[in-house]
Order: sequence, then structure tokens, then C-alpha cells
Amino acid sequence: MEQKDGRQRVVVENIYSMLQEGRFPVKRVAGESVEVYADIFADGHDLISSVLMYRHEKQRKWREVRMEELGNDRWKGRFPVAREGLYFYTVSGWIDHARSWLHDIRIKADNGQSIEVEQQMGLLYLEEALNRAIGSYKEELQGYIDLMSEAERQDEIVQALHDERLEELLRRFSERRFPTTYPRFLRVLAERKKALFSAWYELFPRSTSPDPSRPGTLRDVEALLPRIRHLGFDVLYLPPIHPIGHSHRKGKNNSTTALEGDPGSPWAIGNEQGGHKSIDPALGNFEDFTSLINSAKKQDIEIALDIAFQCSPDHPYVKENPQWFKWRPDGSIQYAENPPKKYQDVLPFNFETGDWKNLWKELKSIFDFWIDKGVRIFRVDNPHTKSFPFWEWIMKELKSKHNDIIFLAEAFTRPRIMQRLACLTFTQSYTYYTWRNNKWEIKEYVEELTKTEMKEYFRPSFWPNTPDINPWKLQKPNEAAYMMQLFMAATLSSNYGVYGPVYEFMQAAPVEGKEEYLNSEKYEIRHWDWTRETRISELMRDINVIRRNNKALQNTCNIEFCETQNDQLLAYYKWDDIESNRLLMVVNLDKDHPQSGLVRLPLERLHGQHGDKFVMLDLMTGNQYVWESEWNFVLLDPAHYPFHLFRIEKL
Amino acid sequence: MEQKDGRQRVVVENIYSMLQEGRFPVKRVAGESVEVYADIFADGHDLISSVLMYRHEKQRKWREVRMEELGNDRWKGRFPVAREGLYFYTVSGWIDHARSWLHDIRIKADNGQSIEVEQQMGLLYLEEALNRAIGSYKEELQGYIDLMSEAERQDEIVQALHDERLEELLRRFSERRFPTTYPRFLRVLAERKKALFSAWYELFPRSTSPDPSRPGTLRDVEALLPRIRHLGFDVLYLPPIHPIGHSHRKGKNNSTTALEGDPGSPWAIGNEQGGHKSIDPALGNFEDFTSLINSAKKQDIEIALDIAFQCSPDHPYVKENPQWFKWRPDGSIQYAENPPKKYQDVLPFNFETGDWKNLWKELKSIFDFWIDKGVRIFRVDNPHTKSFPFWEWIMKELKSKHNDIIFLAEAFTRPRIMQRLACLTFTQSYTYYTWRNNKWEIKEYVEELTKTEMKEYFRPSFWPNTPDINPWKLQKPNEAAYMMQLFMAATLSSNYGVYGPVYEFMQAAPVEGKEEYLNSEKYEIRHWDWTRETRISELMRDINVIRRNNKALQNTCNIEFCETQNDQLLAYYKWDDIESNRLLMVVNLDKDHPQSGLVRLPLERLHGQHGDKFVMLDLMTGNQYVWESEWNFVLLDPAHYPFHLFRIEKL
Repeated sequence: MEQKDGRQRVVVENIYSMLQEGRFPVKRVAGESVEVYADIFADGHDLISSVLMYRHEKQRKWREVRMEELGNDRWKGRFPVAREGLYFYTVSGWIDHARSWLHDIRIKADNGQSIEVEQQMGLLYLEEALNRAIGSYKEELQGYIDLMSEAERQDEIVQALHDERLEELLRRFSERRFPTTYPRFLRVLAERKKALFSAWYELFPRSTSPDPSRPGTLRDVEALLPRIRHLGFDVLYLPPIHPIGHSHRKGKNNSTTALEGDPGSPWAIGNEQGGHKSIDPALGNFEDFTSLINSAKKQDIEIALDIAFQCSPDHPYVKENPQWFKWRPDGSIQYAENPPKKYQDVLPFNFETGDWKNLWKELKSIFDFWIDKGVRIFRVDNPHTKSFPFWEWIMKELKSKHNDIIFLAEAFTRPRIMQRLACLTFTQSYTYYTWRNNKWEIKEYVEELTKTEMKEYFRPSFWPNTPDINPWKLQKPNEAAYMMQLFMAATLSSNYGVYGPVYEFMQAAPVEGKEEYLNSEKYEIRHWDWTRETRISELMRDINVIRRNNKALQNTCNIEFCETQNDQLLAYYKWDDIESNRLLMVVNLDKDHPQSGLVRLPLERLHGQHGDKFVMLDLMTGNQYVWESEWNFVLLDPAHYPFHLFRIEKL
Repeated sequence: MEQKDGRQRVVVENIYSMLQEGRFPVKRVAGESVEVYADIFADGHDLISSVLMYRHEKQRKWREVRMEELGNDRWKGRFPVAREGLYFYTVSGWIDHARSWLHDIRIKADNGQSIEVEQQMGLLYLEEALNRAIGSYKEELQGYIDLMSEAERQDEIVQALHDERLEELLRRFSERRFPTTYPRFLRVLAERKKALFSAWYELFPRSTSPDPSRPGTLRDVEALLPRIRHLGFDVLYLPPIHPIGHSHRKGKNNSTTALEGDPGSPWAIGNEQGGHKSIDPALGNFEDFTSLINSAKKQDIEIALDIAFQCSPDHPYVKENPQWFKWRPDGSIQYAENPPKKYQDVLPFNFETGDWKNLWKELKSIFDFWIDKGVRIFRVDNPHTKSFPFWEWIMKELKSKHNDIIFLAEAFTRPRIMQRLACLTFTQSYTYYTWRNNKWEIKEYVEELTKTEMKEYFRPSFWPNTPDINPWKLQKPNEAAYMMQLFMAATLSSNYGVYGPVYEFMQAAPVEGKEEYLNSEKYEIRHWDWTRETRISELMRDINVIRRNNKALQNTCNIEFCETQNDQLLAYYKWDDIESNRLLMVVNLDKDHPQSGLVRLPLERLHGQHGDKFVMLDLMTGNQYVWESEWNFVLLDPAHYPFHLFRIEKL
């Protein structure tokens, strides 16, 4: 498709969105659409026409939609992505001689200039169009040709020249001479809806036992499914369920020497009982696993597995494939470290091994194995410590076979790296949400995610806590803080998740001075009272129901922050595609004191004007207010509810 | 160079500046340098090293400069372009295992951890470096190896590990494993200095006669050279000098019927005496032309010719190559028009002709012809009405043979199109300067030209007037207005020009209600009193001398606007590369009234602080002031000088 004919006068460039020169696809979910922008122009004064061409990977035929000029040589088109899978698209533009002719002859006719010769030229364009037209369009065009051929009907001709229908017929059927097509097929990855809208609950299977005298099992997890469902979550995410290494096993509170009975970290994967394709016998067997998967499916919950590409020193890989690890001069294998920290119970793979091709294949086979067992969602541990070419390859391989797999990238690292992983088609990404505290930080961060090019490929998942992060603000069991953090995660981002039991029960005593947990479940078995429901549990249930019933909360990028006259009040407006579901969230960021002030309704967004009245129904409390002006008073008491979630109806 | 080995862990992307994915070169003049930015990162915690590679098109060997990390995975490098011609460059990055080792072992040593094994690993890196090192570096490395091999010298070893020199040796010689090189050679077009710094004077040769009874000739132009030189201009630009058509010749004031003796528009090129490769016999012959070129060269002036690719109906091409024109159904050739306007004396070429290849070749031969006659500067008429592929081809062809040709694009049209022509390597471009009037318009426009990516490829030339544009503000002979417009053109932009006699003599009576001239030289011969010197002529001379003596005025992008407390006062600071030449310009934009107010010295740029004193020498008047504070009072009376041009010296 490279430009070859010197008569291709049209330039097509600056396509938006194009990630890294088209190397990466933009992301959508099936049912959404893609807006495409391009600079399209040519020398001279001739008119240009342009189309956006697209097709699903399984379709042969290109479809077209017309692009419209926005001014200043910028054009825009939009096409729907109805199905899951890859779409290709590109943009084509050409000098539209027929429409240029029409444009000129109209002006000449209006200026009373002779148009005799122009009429003859026009007949040529009309004949060309006639040859390309189909069905009843042919008759319409023939009508214009007949008229234009009769010199004596000059007044009628001049009138007909101004028909919009004539222009439309020419647009549609006139010949495309020397079109310039952007020399690249750009891509859209359309995924299933859960890629964009999901609520995750994380728990450690070994801590699910109802009986304090024994550890939990996969069967115990299965028994908890109704509870998870009751809370409204649709993804249940389990840390690694594989056999755990013995060598250098970590003891309670990350001590370097494990005591008898210490279970070790689930991320120290592999021992003599197996590795990444095995289940820790203490948790159960494959029959239990299958039962869990099936039972979850029946309750509209999906099980997400943790994929951590690393090994305990006892992993079978170490003996079978020593070449996949980095050996030190003293004959030991390099364990994970980030000096001065050491993780002797974990051996990273060496992605620079000469045997990298076999390493890649084997790691891919781990995904294949669990996909085969019915898993469709994976949370990938530390993807930023494995090489990018590896992820690029594995994502392509897996997605070409399965278009329903969801990958959550657990990369808490520098922006470029998190962005890169998202470009390599990780479906969702952990974010910095956990560390954004005040109004301006939250607004700036959410706008970066939703208003910049990131919105095209980076799908955030907001987690107020994880087993690895015990944020300062949640270390004390302050109900308002827990409610506020959960509320914002679930309403700012359509994907969110919580490290569940710690959150519900507000059991987050820290290691002094660190964002870590005392008695972390990573290193020991905990026993939770799963029969208990807290006010936080209730909020989870309520907010998840509201998310399900309000389309405005099922997308992340449809957000606009609203002005407030109190920096402790954060307000944001969200809406659905057809603007029938419109929500205003107001949060008191001060967990300790009531805060009040004026909040500005986004009147432009609401297509409203001064004087309009709005009914504000708080979906959390059922209270209803009528707002009669642009600025409205709000008071939020953390002792009660630290937020409003208003559904807005015009009165 | 595409990435193939899966072990290439480093990503190199987002290169700045890269125009249209590297399709177009950025521009410099010989002696400047190029700053290159890139995002460079990898998985994990290893350190990265990276180099910027570059070579001149005539060199085989790549040179390298080290890139430095700016933070957030953004890197920067800079290389010099010493010679004219094309330079290629790209960026390469790799995991620097040796430096990563050094980084880690330092931390471990500082933490009192055992480093025995690490020392052994380090010996391997040092040996590798030794193998790649040369000369005395070898000895230095051997010294470190010897030390590191003696276990009992532990204290010395720990100290040596912290040597900056050791890090430098490793940086320089350690092995580059699996480097990632950006898969494209980006280009820099280095041109001669006049591409960036030039002052143009435009006149019509036929209006240069000292004898009112006959038209001017090329010999008369030659006789005017000392005057042009005296005014300080270094480019003398002549509208087309070819035979002028008879058919539909335009009369005075663009009338459609020429009277006996009307000379016609020089842009209606060609008659029975020849076309684009001929000289109008009324102006002289090739001997006269050669004499003019040579005489100009001796006086450090270059002659710029006008290349207008269009024909009068009498041009020999019309008979010889009728296929290069657009024929209408009535057997006539399509003349230029922009309905309802008609230009019957001018036939455009049809760039969609089937014979486009021969048309291109012939048009190129016109440039070749005049290049052969000694011309090195061309002002290209309406390039935006000829196809972009044509310009791309012709620029490549011509520049690959001659790296000293300068092309000024006369495209007054939409931004994208002007930008595109600049990308296609037109050397300089006309601008919207003529229509930027108030302070904010001027600042915004100049900042667009000098602070956005445009600075990399679009070299503005500021013209306060041209034969086609008689701007409203210059239609009355207001000395202050003329001085101000010239002053700003010559100090805001290192390239500028004037339509000379009309400007010097302020003879710009308009066609009522239009930005056109009454009795325009385009359609008739004028007689100017070339012996006369006006206050404007004096200003031209003074400002051109100042431009020559002050490097700060020889570049356009080194500009920063300064705050003033009066919107009629425009102030801007300019400086040279080594900041030894520092200028502050202050202009009164109100041609009718004195204006005064405070102007802020750009203290940060001046590396100054509160309390510093600066001597401000006005290079126009010789007056000198001492400024003792950040904000300083200025009063500018348009009756005297409507501007200051201060050279700043710290006291």
C-alpha cells in the first residue's frame, strides 16, 4: 500500500490513536466503538473525500464509514466493534473531482457566470457515477443526466445543481482517483465486557477454613462462594495454589527461618510434589479445583488464578532445566534480590538464557494448562521483572487462540513500564490509586488515565489494598476511611478489587512504620469469621449492586470532575453512552470531621441551563433532594456516610 | 535491525524529534547540534546504558555519544552536525550487567554483607572489559583485576569499588549484550548558514531604471547592488524574469484587458520568445544575467530567482506538451481559477496527467538550468498548488546533488499544508507574521514556531509586506508603523525580507478596501528614485548591521518573551549559544501614541538575582541605562523610535 503513483495528491497522516506507530492495538470491549482522527489534505483547492476502512480479523471484506472534516484539515470517523477479537482499520482519502466540480459550478451559477462548458464536464462525472451506482441510485443519477443534457431547461438545471441529493449521489458513487491509503493496518483489540467492568475479591484459600483447627482448602473456598456472590463480586482471585518450597522457606512475619508447621509463602512455588501445574495437596486436588470452577460459574463468579513466574529452590524445573536460572561462580543459583534485600526462597528465571525459546514455551504451557482447566482470568505477578519480548509473544500466542482471557498486570513500578505492559495487551493494570490521597492528586491521576492516550490501552483496576500493600490510611480500623477508599475505587474505576477479609474486618495492623501487615497471610494461615458481616461488607454489597444497575459506573473514561468550594470535598460526574444514566458522586476526603460546602453541577454536561431543577436521589441512602441552582450545599459526616452517590434526574 | 532475539530486553521508543515516524529529516545548519530524546527502559532492576549513534551521509563509520537519563526513563543525547548534508542517527540501549554488578556490590559492601562471590563475578566483567579496552585503559583495568584477585586486601577493594573511574571504565568497555537499536535511521538535514540567517530585498527588475523614459534591465539591477549592500541585505530576490505571455495579458491594476504597452504580469510566464529557461529580452540576456550574478557575489549578495510553475497560454510547453494541461470539453485549456475569480493569463499544470513523469523531469530541469547559471536561492511561487509527491521527489533529487540550494516556500495557506512543505525540505517558509498585530497574537505565534515541534523543520521568514500583500497597517505612510513592523520582522526572526522600494518609500496606496496595491508593480512598470534614502532605509541599514554583529539575532528559536505591565509594550529576550551576546527588545505596538510601563528582566535566563545591576546599551541610539531592579520603566515615543534594542551587560 506504499505510495507509488506520483498522482496521489492526498496526504493521510497523524492518525489518532496510533500506539507506537501502530505496533500496538488500542483496546475496546465488544459493543463499543472506535473514533479515528487523521490529518487529510492535498495541494490546491479541490475537495477531498475520505473513508475509514475496517474489518474484523475473521472477515475478508472491508467495511467503510465516511469521515467528516472537523476543520483545519483534521478529520474524524467512527466504527463499531461488535465482536470480540482483533479489528483492522485504516484511512483512505482522494481528491473528489466530481464534488469539486459541483462546488465550482454552483458558485459560477450563483454569480451568473456561463456554465455551459461546466455542464458538459459534469455530465462526464455523472456518467462515471452511473457506472458505479446500483439499484434505484442508477435511476436517480440518470434523471440528473437527462436534465443536464437539455440546454433549454437552464433554470431547472441551476436548481438541481443545488440539490443535496445530487451531492450525496456523487459522494457515494463518483470515481476515486489516485486514493492515498494510510500505509498501515492499525488494530483494535475487542475484548469481552468483563475486561472493562469487574469487581474482584481476593482471599487466601488456606485461610478459608470454618474450623480453626485445620487450614482451609479449595472445598472451603467453594463453600464461601455464596457469600462472595452476596457481596456482589464477580471475580474471586486466589494467590498461587501450587506446592510451596521447603528450602529457605519464610516463617511468620517474613522471618528467614521457618518454624515447624509454618506454611511458607505461596509465591515460593514448587517442591517435590510439583510446580506450576500442580495443586498443593494441602489445598486439595484437581477434582476439588474443577468443582470450584464449575460451582463459581453457576454463581456468576469467575476464579482468577495467580501466575507467578518464579521458583522455589525445590521446584522440579531447577533440576530438569538448570539452564533457565542464573548460576553464580560459587555454584549456587542466583536468588531474587534488590540489594540489600534478599529473597532466598525465590529463584527468578534468567530471561537471557541461551535456552530462552524453550523457557518461553514452557511458561506458555503453564497458561495453557490452566486455561484447559477452565480458568479464563489470570492475575500476573510482577510482570515487570520478566522481559517485554516474552510478554509480547505470549500475549499474541494466547490471544490468537482464546479471545476471552483476561490478564491483570501486577506491576507497581514506573509509569513507562506499566504503560508498556498494557500496550503488550495485558487486559487490566494495577495502579497508583492506593497512594493518591488529596483531591488534586486523585483528579490529576484519574484524568491522566482517562483523558490522555492512556485511555486507549491502559485499563486501570483500583485496589485500596492488597496483601502486599497495607496503606497508611487503612492501618487503623477507621470505618470512614475504609468506606471512602472502597467507594472511590468502585465508582472512579469500573474495574476494582479488594484484598477481602482484611478489608471487611478492618484487620490491618501494620508492621511498625511500614506499609506491610503484621502477621501477614503471605506467611501464615489466618482464621477469619466468615459468618460475620461488617458495615464495610454491607457497603461492598450495596456498591456492587449499584454498579450493576447503573451503566455510568461500568466504564472508567466517562468521568468529569466537578468544582467544589471545599478541598476536602471531591465530586465527579459519570454518565452512560446514551446519557440516560447520570450520576454525581461527592466524597468527604476527611475521615475524621464533617465537611460541607458548595458543589457545582456540570450544567453543560447535563445539557442544562440556569434555572433548571434536578432531582438528586442518593442511591446509598434513598434520600432525595431537589437542586435548583448550579451550586448546591452538601454536608458529609464521616460518622454516617462519607459520600453521596446521586442519580440525577431533570425535573 | 528489527528486534529478533528474545533476549533483547531493552525498549527504545518515543524518539524526539521524529517527524512523521522518521519520514522527514529535522533541519539544522552546519555548526549546530541536535538534541535527541528517547524513552529507554527494560524489565527488572538492572542498569541500562545507551548511546546515540550518528554519521554524515559521506561517512561510513558511526560515531557514538553517551546518552544520559533525565529521570522517568527519559534519556537525552546530543551530537554536532559539523558539515552540510544529511546525517543519520539512531539510539541503542542495552542492559549494562557490569554496572549493575557494581551498583549491587557497592550496596552490599556498604551494608557489611559478604561480597566474596560478587567479587568473583566482578572479575568476569572486568576481564571482558579488558578484552575490549585499548591503550592505557588496559593497564587501569588490569590494576583493578589484580587488586580484586587478592582476597586479603578487602578494605582496599571496597574502597576501589567506589571509584568513579572504575565505573567509567566499565561504562566504556563492558560488553553490550543483546542491545536494542531503534529500528530506523532518523535524519538531520544540515544546511548552510544562510538557511537560518538571511535578509532579503525584493524588487522588480523592470522598475530599476534610473531613466524614467525606459524600463529597467538586469544591468540596472546590477548597478543597484551597492545600494542594496549599503542597506545591509544579503539576498536580492527578483520576480520571474522570463518572457511574458500576450494572450489574456493583464493590464494596469489587474484589468482583464491590457492596453498597448502594458507589460503584463511576470508570473504569466512564456511566449514565443521562450519559457522558464529564457530571459525576457526587455530585461537583457544571459550575459547580463551572468554579470549580475558575479557582481552580486563579489558584494556578498546572492540573487534569488522566482520559480513559478505555471504558463501563459503562449508558453512553448502548451504546444509541445499539451498533455501537461487540463483540457475542457470545449477544446480550451483550463486556466487558473478560484471561483468566482478567474486568472485567464495563467494555465496551471495538471499534476494528474498520465505523463506526470515527464512533467516532473521537465520541471526539475528548470531548477537545474538556473543552478547551472549560478543561482543557489529560489523563491518558489505557490508551492501549495503543486502536488506534494512532486516536491518530495524534486527536493530529494536536487539536494542529493547540491547541498547549498535554498528554497523559500511562498505558501500562504492552511497550517498543515505550510508545515508539510517545510517537512518536504523547503528551506524557509513565509509565515502569518504579516497578520499578527497585538501582543498576544505575536507571542502565541512566535512561540508556536519556536517552542513546538515546528522548530525542528519549519524555518520562518518574516515579511512585513510582499507584492501580493499590502497589509492594512502599512497602507498609510506612517513612519512608526513601518519602523515597528520592520524592526520586529528583523529581530523576531533570523530570516526576514521586504518588498523593498514600496517599503523604503512608504508608497503603499491600496486598492480601496483590499490588502492590494494601487498601481501594483505586478502589472506595470514603476520608476523609483533609487538615489533617495528615507528614515526607513536608514533603519534597514542599522538593523542589518546590528543583526550581523549580534549572534543573538542569527537564530530564531532562542527567544523568550518578557512580561510587561502595558499591553502595548512587547518585550523579548534573545541570546547566543554561549550567552555572551544577550539582547532585550522592547517595542511600542501603538504607532500613534507614546507608551510607557514596566518591563521585567528575565533574571533566571540572565543567571541573575535580585540586586544585580545591568547596563542596558541601546544599539539603535547609543543611549545607555543602568537597570538595578527586576522591573524597569520604559517609555517609547513613536515619533522618535518606537523600540529599544538593548545589549545587556552585567555590571
